[in-house]
Amino acid sequence: MFEFVEGGVCAASGFVAGGIHCGIRKNADKKDLALIYSVVPCTAAAIYTLNKVKGAPISITKAHLLDGRANAMLCNSGNANTCNANGVQIASQMCKSAGEALGIPPQDVIIASTGVIGQPLPLAPIVSSMDALVASMSTGGSLDATEAIMTTDLHPKQSAVKFELDGQTCAIGGICKGSGMIHPNMATMLCFITTDVNITAPLLKKACKSVADETFNMISVDGDTSTNDMLSIMANGQSGAAEISDANDERYTRFCEGLMLVCRSLARAMAADGEGATKLLECSVTGAPSHIAAQRVAKSVVCSSLLKAAMFGEDANWGRVLCAVGYADAEFDVSRVSVAFCSGAGEVQVCEFGVGVDFDEDKAKKILELPEITIKVDMQQGSHSATAYGCDLSHEYVNINGDYRS
Amino acid sequence: MFEFVEGGVCAASGFVAGGIHCGIRKNADKKDLALIYSVVPCTAAAIYTLNKVKGAPISITKAHLLDGRANAMLCNSGNANTCNANGVQIASQMCKSAGEALGIPPQDVIIASTGVIGQPLPLAPIVSSMDALVASMSTGGSLDATEAIMTTDLHPKQSAVKFELDGQTCAIGGICKGSGMIHPNMATMLCFITTDVNITAPLLKKACKSVADETFNMISVDGDTSTNDMLSIMANGQSGAAEISDANDERYTRFCEGLMLVCRSLARAMAADGEGATKLLECSVTGAPSHIAAQRVAKSVVCSSLLKAAMFGEDANWGRVLCAVGYADAEFDVSRVSVAFCSGAGEVQVCEFGVGVDFDEDKAKKILELPEITIKVDMQQGSHSATAYGCDLSHEYVNINGDYRS
Repeated sequence: MFEFVEGGVCAASGFVAGGIHCGIRKNADKKDLALIYSVVPCTAAAIYTLNKVKGAPISITKAHLLDGRANAMLCNSGNANTCNANGVQIASQMCKSAGEALGIPPQDVIIASTGVIGQPLPLAPIVSSMDALVASMSTGGSLDATEAIMTTDLHPKQSAVKFELDGQTCAIGGICKGSGMIHPNMATMLCFITTDVNITAPLLKKACKSVADETFNMISVDGDTSTNDMLSIMANGQSGAAEISDANDERYTRFCEGLMLVCRSLARAMAADGEGATKLLECSVTGAPSHIAAQRVAKSVVCSSLLKAAMFGEDANWGRVLCAVGYADAEFDVSRVSVAFCSGAGEVQVCEFGVGVDFDEDKAKKILELPEITIKVDMQQGSHSATAYGCDLSHEYVNINGDYRS
Repeated sequence: MFEFVEGGVCAASGFVAGGIHCGIRKNADKKDLALIYSVVPCTAAAIYTLNKVKGAPISITKAHLLDGRANAMLCNSGNANTCNANGVQIASQMCKSAGEALGIPPQDVIIASTGVIGQPLPLAPIVSSMDALVASMSTGGSLDATEAIMTTDLHPKQSAVKFELDGQTCAIGGICKGSGMIHPNMATMLCFITTDVNITAPLLKKACKSVADETFNMISVDGDTSTNDMLSIMANGQSGAAEISDANDERYTRFCEGLMLVCRSLARAMAADGEGATKLLECSVTGAPSHIAAQRVAKSVVCSSLLKAAMFGEDANWGRVLCAVGYADAEFDVSRVSVAFCSGAGEVQVCEFGVGVDFDEDKAKKILELPEITIKVDMQQGSHSATAYGCDLSHEYVNINGDYRS
């Protein structure tokens, strides 16, 4: 029904992308400017950071998306264009430059920046490279765009699925960057998604919101919410399938399923590539009395520095899991909670009904040695579930964030 | 008016304390059982962890303090007596044993435990050592008691003040332990306070709550709330000053001032001795629109892993301060916020009205090299203030918490 495919943001029909080094970064080998473009205008939506300190590009993108339409996404790395006196002006001029080069109105450009904050973003290298950036775009350009938005990410992150609607093959694809939410002052979770589904802007916004709540909003690398976080999506309708305009339409549900697959895959990749991470941690909560309780318990566990350090040390310290469950801000009975550690090497039950049980330490060690660990929390008091994604806390995290400017 | 003095929990008249090795810990050089005793019965109060997972001693102490009276405080380290099937029974029997040895009712004993969770706490070494523990008590025994409650703490933490009430010299003294909130699964913030002031139990509780909200509840070492956290206080009236029974009494205000001095000093010591800490961080927020906003902003800053790692690296990454301010859960205008770094080496302004300012990097480096750093956040939109206490995030934190059982 859904098939993962290559191509990232160019998997959907009618999209091209590119990425180049324009000169914001000193290192000429590191791309720093990305562009994604649809051959026809799109419906579009975005969701934004909840931090009160917001990057200048956020305010411009918000204004540009008031009409629910966009045609291109422009993003630089190396500078977040945040907390600068002239930030809004620079972000505006970036859109103007891209609009001129592409022949579209500047207000149809979604703009984002990631990198150091509080340092003026120079406009000249961006404007002077815009024609080259436009020329670099192709249907094979998703990886270049991904590389151009990376900060301390070690791996480019792309995902795409194909599926059928009305007998037409459709695609949803995305790229993202994350890492430690910092570089060098901090960075950002950015995600750009494209689709050739024909869908109204309000439904696009609704789908993004509900999917992000179960995926990107369930990630924690270090608990810090960046100033520039943004997920944006453009839908160009090029698949030929009829428009989705009703949330009760079964095709809307299908679209959300596809979007969920892409976003979950990107969110897991982002958590696994967290700054200094050696392991991906998933906390899977079942049997919760409410969905919000399931989400809060799952996030509390993957956010615990104690547990993250224990997982780095491959130590089955289940008390830290139960402790993090216990301070989650939700109503539930902790005396019913059971905990197990799980990976490709098997599963070991460590706590039942709030009390520790004897377990095989050797088996636990083998389970925790693997790079993807699932912490199963069965609350045994309801039917709700949720999963959160995080990573371990390593020496390398301290290195990256403590020694950056030295 | 208030004078810091030696003596810890024995600074107040009529209190003795002791600490011995009874055998809960394997290492015979490490004390693991502490007792604090008043020669006369006391009014008493305590405040407890908000974690839903609560150590068995917490439930016993809560029951024992229903009448607002106590006569002794008993605490072991090396085992938290938490998440064990027989935990409540063991905690009860510890009180019974102490009560018999001291000739007081078991319900007049405040009980606490700290250490590993989920492992049965053996009663035998405690009971068989109780007479020796009682015999070890003296007016010079506060340090022994402090050492007996330490887990991964590197330094014993005691504080006491003297002051006058009704022409009588009074004292308030306390000991505490904290560190990383972990050892080996997790540990605990425990604080035991004694005073010879004559004060009713309801006012004692009220004073503890208000002072803890500005001191211990403003500390963060790693964001984890332990299952066994407790602050308890006993007041024996031995100073001879008349009873305080009215919150509007000026002497109640004096008592709270003294309690605040002791608790702030202990809270700072606890933050400075956080697991792996190389620096004490204080975030001092002024000009806030409300007290809750001041508290939340201050705590958000000292809780940020990004900022903590930057302080370890002595890197003046003010963007991380502003980012943490921005995601604090409170209503305010971030565009009015200014930030400065401050220590014994001076002060450097790094951000004014939400925008970075040029600053002398060499001077900033010299300021951040010192072991006590204050991050000043002036919100410039009100008259409220608050201070939070924390520590940096170091390699040693990861070592302690990642490699404990290997």
